[in-house]
Amino acid sequence: MEQPKLQIIGILHGDIHSREDAPKNFDESERVGTLEIYPEYQEGLEGIVAGQTIVVLFWLHKSTRNNLQVYPRGNRSRGLRGVFATRSPVRPNPIAVSELKVQAIRANRLEVSGLDILDGTPIIDIKKKISR
Amino acid sequence: MEQPKLQIIGILHGDIHSREDAPKNFDESERVGTLEIYPEYQEGLEGIVAGQTIVVLFWLHKSTRNNLQVYPRGNRSRGLRGVFATRSPVRPNPIAVSELKVQAIRANRLEVSGLDILDGTPIIDIKKKISR
Repeated sequence: MEQPKLQIIGILHGDIHSREDAPKNFDESERVGTLEIYPEYQEGLEGIVAGQTIVVLFWLHKSTRNNLQVYPRGNRSRGLRGVFATRSPVRPNPIAVSELKVQAIRANRLEVSGLDILDGTPIIDIKKKISR
Repeated sequence: MEQPKLQIIGILHGDIHSREDAPKNFDESERVGTLEIYPEYQEGLEGIVAGQTIVVLFWLHKSTRNNLQVYPRGNRSRGLRGVFATRSPVRPNPIAVSELKVQAIRANRLEVSGLDILDGTPIIDIKKKISR
C-alpha cells in the first residue's frame, strides 16, 4: 500500500510557542486559542455547538519521526519507554489527539480551551467526543 | 506546506468484514481482534501492558474523502451534518480513533477488545489513554 497523504484542513492560532511552555497534555490545560478551518472545509463544521467537547487531530509538524523509544518527560530515571505506550509527540506519525472545549464559533473559526499544542500547528481532523 | 505522508505501522486482524456488520462505535462493541505491529516498529510497544486501555489510530483505507456532510447512520430524518460534528468514517482524512482494551500481548501482536473497525485496516498510531 502506498503511503497515504494527509490534507491539512486548518491551522491553530494560540499562545504556546515552545514545548517548554506547553502543558504536558490537554487534561492539564486551560489555555485558549482558535482553530481556523480553511474555507473549503467549513461546511464540515455544521452541527458543532459552543459548550461541546470535540476531539481534534493535529499534525505535529515540528516533531521527529524516527525514534521508537523516549524518556518520560521530566523523569529520565524511569528509563526508556516505547512511544506507543506514551503521549510523546515523537512517533512515526506525529498526530496529537486533543479533547478541547468549544467556547465560541464564528463562521470558520472555533475558539477552544484546553490546548497543549504549539501556535501554527496544522489541523487534520475534528470529531465528536465519545468515550467508553 | 506539502501534504504529510503517513507510515503504516501495522494491520488489524478481526472478524468484521462489512460496515453493516460493524458496531457503530467502540463504546458499543465487545468484538475482539489482533493488532499486528510490523517488526520494525515493535520496539515502540515497550511498556504497554495487558488490562490497559489504549488509543489506536486507524487509516480507514476504504472510506471516501470528498464528502463534507453526511446523514446520521440509520436516521436520515435528522438531516445532513458536517462530518467534523460526527464520527463518520467519511471525512477528508479518514482516521479512526478507537479506545481498545488490551487482552494479551505476544511480541508484536496485541489482542484487543472493543473493535468497530474492518478486518485488514492499516494501523497508524497507538497512544496511552488520557481523558479530561
